[in-house]
Amino acid sequence: MIQLSLADARTLVATILANAGFSEGHVRTLTDTIVAGERDGCTSHGLYRTLVCAHSLRTGKVDGNALPRVHDQAPAIVRVDACGGYSLLAFEAGLPHLIEKARHNGIAAMAINHCVHFSALWPEVERLTDAGLVGLACNPSHAWVAPSGGRVPLLGTNPFAFGWPRPDKPPYVFDFATSAVARGEIELRRRAGESIPEGWGIDAAGNATTDPQAIVDGGAMLTFGDHKGSALSTMIELIAGPLIGDLTSLESLRHDGGAGGSPYHGELVLALDPSRFISGDPAPHAARAEALLDAFVPSGARLPSQRRYEARARSRVEGVRIPEQLHAELVALRDDPAMRVMPG
Amino acid sequence: MIQLSLADARTLVATILANAGFSEGHVRTLTDTIVAGERDGCTSHGLYRTLVCAHSLRTGKVDGNALPRVHDQAPAIVRVDACGGYSLLAFEAGLPHLIEKARHNGIAAMAINHCVHFSALWPEVERLTDAGLVGLACNPSHAWVAPSGGRVPLLGTNPFAFGWPRPDKPPYVFDFATSAVARGEIELRRRAGESIPEGWGIDAAGNATTDPQAIVDGGAMLTFGDHKGSALSTMIELIAGPLIGDLTSLESLRHDGGAGGSPYHGELVLALDPSRFISGDPAPHAARAEALLDAFVPSGARLPSQRRYEARARSRVEGVRIPEQLHAELVALRDDPAMRVMPG
Repeated sequence: MIQLSLADARTLVATILANAGFSEGHVRTLTDTIVAGERDGCTSHGLYRTLVCAHSLRTGKVDGNALPRVHDQAPAIVRVDACGGYSLLAFEAGLPHLIEKARHNGIAAMAINHCVHFSALWPEVERLTDAGLVGLACNPSHAWVAPSGGRVPLLGTNPFAFGWPRPDKPPYVFDFATSAVARGEIELRRRAGESIPEGWGIDAAGNATTDPQAIVDGGAMLTFGDHKGSALSTMIELIAGPLIGDLTSLESLRHDGGAGGSPYHGELVLALDPSRFISGDPAPHAARAEALLDAFVPSGARLPSQRRYEARARSRVEGVRIPEQLHAELVALRDDPAMRVMPG
Repeated sequence: MIQLSLADARTLVATILANAGFSEGHVRTLTDTIVAGERDGCTSHGLYRTLVCAHSLRTGKVDGNALPRVHDQAPAIVRVDACGGYSLLAFEAGLPHLIEKARHNGIAAMAINHCVHFSALWPEVERLTDAGLVGLACNPSHAWVAPSGGRVPLLGTNPFAFGWPRPDKPPYVFDFATSAVARGEIELRRRAGESIPEGWGIDAAGNATTDPQAIVDGGAMLTFGDHKGSALSTMIELIAGPLIGDLTSLESLRHDGGAGGSPYHGELVLALDPSRFISGDPAPHAARAEALLDAFVPSGARLPSQRRYEARARSRVEGVRIPEQLHAELVALRDDPAMRVMPG
């Protein structure tokens, strides 16, 4: 393993993305999110993603110079057209408006349209909790998941994230896929020739399977939590798809046309301002929330982001460790003159 | 079984509730919801609830004359103080304001405070879909459920409901408890001396149990969907509790003090207006949602409210059938002069 300080990791990622041809804004927002992923121990959303982003740009799957367009859609809605770029710069462009609208109205929504999406949602809900707001975020993906009882993949892995600001503590944040497991988990087992537990997927005939190959060969993944998880995933299709005038996971997969690219769709973010929901001092109510959350760990329960925050604290002191081979690939990409794109 | 037309069922329920001492508004909103439950085949929220409501009033657990107070809390928030009455009249009092705010701002919230709560949430999200809006609703309950990995009940059965309007069809609606099963399901098995499947609850030591008695004796129920369902239930505690200045499930149970009454807490309802989220005609986007939902049944999947809508169509023609003993109890209550409360 190779150890890198967070600053060195930033420089490495930012240099590769800039050389590849991403604009300054995309470089900055991509680097923030990629390094935050590695820092928090989410390696699947960490430095490895730099390779994917550079590849997506090279193969024309994403616009590296897309400038998000912000629309004041309604008194409590900001809409941001990502114009075919990654979602992150669009999120950043809309964020000040979302915060202002939430503080003014009590609740507000941000709809991001036409974005290429690869990132976790927790960095975004953390931006809202940093502002003292409650945040929710969700998006469709590619249709790999069958609804409960069905034989056909109609739903995406549709992540759902939530953040609650805590006084003097990291926020209460969760961010989970509504599929039973991540797509990558099934792919890993398939490559290793291993079986998977029941409940992860079905074969082409709609029967439960423990063979990851059967899921890829015309089968489907399943949602978490049976019909309840399936309902939640369907809700995400609707509110982060047609509600905001953007694609469902089925449409995103069709749009990809078998190219294996990142999903292309929209994202819905809600922000709620606790100081507007009650008259008077919100502090005693925040304290009652603390009393509930503080009871979790002593009772044996884990708080959802506990492991991430522990990794974050560690990474801030020790930096991050990445596999030697990944480091070599990143350095080769950084130093490859063929990867340098002249700004057009 | 005794067969009753929907009109006769309404008259029976309304007469009992009026005799018991509920005000006209509470009689009307309670009757609507109780008869709708029976009509849709949800017997646990059906005519049997009339007995529970009358008993709760007699024992002072609910204020039958409470007049909800509506506050224009923020541009996109209406707050309704139920003042110790049932939630339903408060919901009705706030609904026109919620609809108006959602249509004006694109998204709006209704916070209901200090309500006694027994009802399902689907009748409420259906009121929003009737108005062409997307609705979400949730509330805490009593703390009977342990968070994932924990040994102590810190969460309620915390229902979550969602509604999506469909052109020329009943809306897409789900309404589920975030507990693995309803509390009543465990109670039924306990009384029958039957065991329960693994995953429903734990004993006092925090170990998985199939003995319903062990759950009652210091154990706890579990959420659906392991840590993901647990996270969702925690979110509901926070946004339908401290966010709106109202009790958590732990606090609701403490407030009950062992009396076995209905939970007393708040409720959060969100409304989103599809016509405000996009510029131009929303119809093509609604049609894309239809394409997704129309693919469910042919693929073998069920739409969440399918069974309810089938029961509704049947009940509208045939009326409802209730057990003879329940009917006898209701008639006895209706005809009992001791149950008649003089308006104070």
